[in-house]
Order: sequence, then structure tokens, then C-alpha cells
Amino acid sequence: MTTEGREGFRILDEKSLTEYIKATPSLSSKLGTELDNLKIKEVGDGNLNFVYIVISPSGSIVIKQAVPYVRLIGESWPMSKERSYFEATALKRQHGLSPKHVPEVYHFDRTMSLIAMRYVEPPHIIVRKGLVSGVKYPLLAEHMSEFMANTLFYTSLLYLTTTQHKSAVAEFCANVEICRLTEQVVFSDPYKISEYNRWTSPYLDADAEAVRNDKVLKLEVAELKSKFCEQTQALIHGDLHTSSVMVTQDSTQVIDPEFAFYGPMGFDIGAFIGNLFLAYFSQDGHADQENNRKTYKEWIMNTIADTWNLFHKKFTSLWDTHKDGPGEAYLHEVYEDMELWELVKQKYMIGLFHDSLGFAAAKMIRRIVGVAHVEDFESIVDPVKRADCERRALDFAKMVMKTRRNFITITDVISAV
Amino acid sequence: MTTEGREGFRILDEKSLTEYIKATPSLSSKLGTELDNLKIKEVGDGNLNFVYIVISPSGSIVIKQAVPYVRLIGESWPMSKERSYFEATALKRQHGLSPKHVPEVYHFDRTMSLIAMRYVEPPHIIVRKGLVSGVKYPLLAEHMSEFMANTLFYTSLLYLTTTQHKSAVAEFCANVEICRLTEQVVFSDPYKISEYNRWTSPYLDADAEAVRNDKVLKLEVAELKSKFCEQTQALIHGDLHTSSVMVTQDSTQVIDPEFAFYGPMGFDIGAFIGNLFLAYFSQDGHADQENNRKTYKEWIMNTIADTWNLFHKKFTSLWDTHKDGPGEAYLHEVYEDMELWELVKQKYMIGLFHDSLGFAAAKMIRRIVGVAHVEDFESIVDPVKRADCERRALDFAKMVMKTRRNFITITDVISAV
Repeated sequence: MTTEGREGFRILDEKSLTEYIKATPSLSSKLGTELDNLKIKEVGDGNLNFVYIVISPSGSIVIKQAVPYVRLIGESWPMSKERSYFEATALKRQHGLSPKHVPEVYHFDRTMSLIAMRYVEPPHIIVRKGLVSGVKYPLLAEHMSEFMANTLFYTSLLYLTTTQHKSAVAEFCANVEICRLTEQVVFSDPYKISEYNRWTSPYLDADAEAVRNDKVLKLEVAELKSKFCEQTQALIHGDLHTSSVMVTQDSTQVIDPEFAFYGPMGFDIGAFIGNLFLAYFSQDGHADQENNRKTYKEWIMNTIADTWNLFHKKFTSLWDTHKDGPGEAYLHEVYEDMELWELVKQKYMIGLFHDSLGFAAAKMIRRIVGVAHVEDFESIVDPVKRADCERRALDFAKMVMKTRRNFITITDVISAV
Repeated sequence: MTTEGREGFRILDEKSLTEYIKATPSLSSKLGTELDNLKIKEVGDGNLNFVYIVISPSGSIVIKQAVPYVRLIGESWPMSKERSYFEATALKRQHGLSPKHVPEVYHFDRTMSLIAMRYVEPPHIIVRKGLVSGVKYPLLAEHMSEFMANTLFYTSLLYLTTTQHKSAVAEFCANVEICRLTEQVVFSDPYKISEYNRWTSPYLDADAEAVRNDKVLKLEVAELKSKFCEQTQALIHGDLHTSSVMVTQDSTQVIDPEFAFYGPMGFDIGAFIGNLFLAYFSQDGHADQENNRKTYKEWIMNTIADTWNLFHKKFTSLWDTHKDGPGEAYLHEVYEDMELWELVKQKYMIGLFHDSLGFAAAKMIRRIVGVAHVEDFESIVDPVKRADCERRALDFAKMVMKTRRNFITITDVISAV
């Protein structure tokens, strides 16, 4: 049993989980009376936690427990399980702001680092798996842009007062361990020799070395890292890749915000868009004689374009709606001139666009030459084919990071592929 | 008696101050045994607090007490006296980092919002008064650049770990009332109709209106305001104008960091340089037949140039010294290539230069058309002459804010006057 400062913490297994549920009315009430016949399945395929699906004849819940180390690496890489508190806090806030796209939290136990929430039931799957299989999700861009617009706008100074903002910033500063993990694996390790880095060797050996020796790229990534560390723009999800999103044809659920903190909005937008680009570049590795994936690649590109364009529309629309609201960044009395108001939004959104592209590129690069890879590429069995897909993604990401300020529209970016 | 949540707070006067000192060993020990014959003088010429100089035959101290409103305005503008806690905390930290240029704190009483510190004794005067009188301070740039380089470098991610940095950021987030004051009086009020704004009327009526109608300027000030609100770059003094600095020919003491919080470094550098520019533009109003102030104006310009250039040198030198230190922003293993290391510093410093110019301009503008003015101009009796000086300062500041990114060196800026 590993403990970490807080009395009473213990890592649960299926047996002790049943006892925990029986002793916790807010959970047992969701599952009815037959608590001795719970179906419990551990499904934590992420890098950090244990996740149990608990099903009874009359209900279901998901239980997520953080352990005080990085599960992917083991106890040799300690990681504060207090991240669970921030995940629960962020889940509740995001559910409040975007209830259709974030599961409800039923119960949080800080001592146990344990969150119980709505089970996002089948046929929901992790969207990354759908992207590997070539399944289209016609509402994905609509839903994700809505989730991002709502959660980012309403937690920024465009809507909050300075007092509310600084108080929330202070609260999430304590989620620092998880921020350090991101700093390391996204912004540092891929650009130096690190025991954790890996890539499709030997095919990408020269490419990985080129990343480590690319001065212009390293200057750009430094600027992005500074924004990540210093810019308290909004409460961001912090890990918004395509494995943090569960989908069906008509539902989109964003999960796992344990990396949440006050950071740059572009980090979330870039994470999602960057992972869609990874999905795009992996498609040739999944093509076969039956399906060349050509129309699917077009759908991914359209989804990328729609995500940004719909986000832009929804976000600026929220801003217009609340232009004389509580937000203290752009006081209505200063910016009430109509032409100026349009200029303000244009300038803000183009800056956010360039940030998003930069972070998208950083997230792509780290998935190819850093510690944690993505199923999009990993599931391509032939290493030559995989390396070829990865190299094209890597070259594209490097180009985007270096020249992102030259792009004006998302269509420009897509044309550059 | 005004109280504010915290039991036991009371505003002191000269009599009750003596009782307080007698009851506080850390203070009475500084003043010897003759505590019934203390010379006490209230000298708070600032906008916010009461400041007492306390002198006995055998010692001296300064006592500063915050009251729960803006003293300049009165009780109608409440202001948390908890700023006193942040002032004491910042004073101690800055004294630790730059002991020759920050007075020592002897005693802090959070309940009473009371700081006792070393009396910065005569012939020290507020440097603004020296600038109005035309007195040269040959070490001012050397000392101020040292203060800024040390306090900014060592509290930034160039030296701190992410863990230390986020913890300090969180702590100072609670100094939010004072940040809101700055947001209002520096970044908002001058750009809209506000009951608090004033200017040399009627001479500058059109100039003040032009500021309120200048779209490009308002776009720029929005960007600067966002940095002020969102960028947690270093522990900044937050109010580093020329009335926060006391000088003699060979000593420079920085006081009054009650506005301290984690913000953009350029806000401090800009405050100091901007106020030197204000002093420069005011000189023609102080010139007379005996002294046309020509060589003094040159000295001010040289001091501005030296301040930035020496800051640049000292700051980058600290960075070089600690390049493989604890700071997590630019890991040595990523940036060890010599050419890249130079590029990193160049890019960082040019960004900081442009930030500093932008904030300098914002601080100048607000002193001419906002609520709080400066003695440099206020002491010019003839309003026509004063308005002429102010207009030239205002026009220069507007130009700098709009075109700051075109300047490469401080000499370029000075040439543009």
C-alpha cells in the first residue's frame, strides 16, 4: 500500500471497491440493492490512473482513482495524486459550463483521490479509436467547438472579474506536478536526449536528431513553453487530445481533465487539432485495398477546419453577448466603437489562432519523438510504413511551428499539408 | 475607527503609535530607552497609506500603516489593507535579493497592517523631487538596473523551478485589489470618460479626447493590459515610478512595493523608464534664465539609456551564470549550443524591451490624462507651459506604444524624441 501524506489513502482493487461502494450512499444509491453482484471492470488505458466501470442490474458508474505515481512508468516517477482534486474540480466546472459534453460527477473523495462519475456508456468509444477505424462523427466539430468555446470563454477575463480570475488561478496553481509533467514531456524532452524518448527506430533516428538540432524550432518551442508556464488565460483542460474524448454518432463527451490549470487557451485547441492532424497523417498506414481512406482523410480535414471555424464563431458570439458583462479585460466603455470592437476581436482571435497552431505542432512532435505515442501510428504494424506516416506528420508540424504566424485561416493550414 | 474583517485593527495616530512602539520589543529596541520623547512625523505623501518617521536620540524607524481605502480619494474608494502583507512580503524578498537597494523590514503586524522598517534617512530624497530640481544622480542607472535585474531574474522561471514559481504566483494572487486598481487607473480610465480622470484643462481637452478616440492606441493598450493581468513572469514591484525610489549621490533605495504581484517584468522597467521620460519632458517647464536644463536633459536621456543597457547586461549575465541552475524555463540540455543560447537571450530580451516600452508609454499616458499626476508636471505653475510639456510627453508616449516593435535599441527610442 502506497500512501502520500494523507491518512487513509489506499489503492482499491475490485474487492475493496465493492466495500467502498456499499459504504458510500451517494454511490450505492446509483446502483440499487444488488451490490453483491456488481460487474466491475478495470479499463484504465491511460498513463496515470486506475479506472473501473461498475455495473449493477439497475445502474452504472465509473470510478477513477489516482495513484501517487505515473502508472505508465511506475513508482519510479512519483506524481501527486492531488491531481484527482483538480480533475474533480475541473469536471464539475466544465460540466456546469458545457453540460451536454462533460459527464456529471456523483462523488469525490479527496482522501482516496477517487472520483465517481456518470458512466459514458457504449456505444461511446474513445474518438481516437474511431479515427483509427475510419469512422466519421458528423457532430464532432460542432460539439468540440462548443465545449471549448464555453469552457474557455467563461473562465477567462473576457467573462470573469479580475477578483474571480486571480482566485481561480491561485487555486489551480497547486496542480503544479502535472504541469511539470507536461513541461517535460511536451516542451523539453523531445528537444534533447532523454531516457524516456522513443521513436520508430532506426527509420526516424535522423529525424529525431534533426529535432534536437533545430535551432529555429527550439526558439519557437521556448516561446510556447513560456506561454504554457506563465499565461493564465483560462481554465484549460490541459490534455485535450483525441483519447480524452468519447463519441457516438450524436454524442461527444470530454473526460479526464486532471491536467486542468490556468493556461493558454491555444493549448487546448491545439491539442485537439494537432491530434486530428496526427489522425490524418496516419490514415495512409491504415489504408488497404478495400478502403484507401481518401474520403476519410477529407472528412478529417473538414473536421479540423470546422472545429476552428465553429470555435471562432461560438467564442466571438459569447464575447459579443457578454460584451458589457462582468469581464474586466475589455471594458465596454473603452471598446464600444463598433469598428474598434471588430478590430479587438480580430486581433485576439488571430493571436489565439497562432497559439493554437503552435501548440498543435508541439503536441504532434512530442507524440512522434517523445515518451508517449498515439495509437493512430502505433497500430500501423509495418514500421517502414509507420515511419513514413510519422515523418510526414513531423515535417508538417515543424513547418507549422516555425511559420504559424503566416497563416490567416485554417484553410491556409490545410492547404499547406 | 474603521475595521475590515480582522479583529484588532485600528488606525494609529502619533499618540497611539508611541504606545504601540513601547509595547513592541522589536521596535522599542531600535529606539533606546527614551520612548517618551520620540519625534514622530507623518510624511505619507503617497496615495494610499500613513507613513510615520519615528526618531529617538538613539535610533530611528519608519512605520507604515495601510488603511482600508485609497487615501487619495477617501473612504468612498475601499482598498484592502491586506496589501500591507504583500508589501512586507515583497520588501523582505527584494531586500534578500538586492540588499543594498531595499530597506530592511524590522517588524510586520498583519492585524494592524503595519510595517516597521529602516528609516532611509536624509539626505535621501524621493528621486522625483531631485529630478524636478535638476539634480544629477550618477549611480541611479547602475543601482536601479541592479535592483531590477536581481529582483526580476531571481523570481522568474529563469531561476525558479515550476514548483517554486507556481507557489509564489498563488500567494500573490491574493493581492488582487491592488492589481484591479492598476488595471483601472493605468489601462482603462485614461481611455474612456471617467470621473477620476483629469488633465490640464482646457489646453489638453482635445488631446485627452484624442486618446479616448484612438483605435490603434486602444488595441495596443488592450494587449498590454492582458499581459499585466495574465502573464506571471516575475515578482514585480508593481509601482516602480520615480516616487518609489529614494536617492543620495551614492545610495539608491527602492520602497513601497505594495503593488507587488507576479506580472510582466516590463511593467517595472517601463514604470521607471517612463517616469524618467516624464521628467525629461517636464524640464522645459522648469528651465529659467539661470539654467536652461539642457545638460540636465542630456543626463536624463543618458540615465534612461544606461538603465536599459545596464539592466540588459546584468540580467543576461545572471542568466548566463545560472544557465544550468534550478530554473526550468530554458533547460541547459536543450539550449547548450552556444549560437542557440545567444539567440534565446536575444529573442527574450527584445521581447522584454518591447514590453518595457509599451508599459512605459502606458504609464506616461495615465499620468497626463488619468487620475494620478506627477510632481514633474504639477510643479510647473504656468498651465500653458505645463500643457505644452505634457502634450509633447503624451505624443511621444502614443508614438512609442504604437510603434514599439520597430525599436531595436534604447538609443533608437531616445533619438525618436
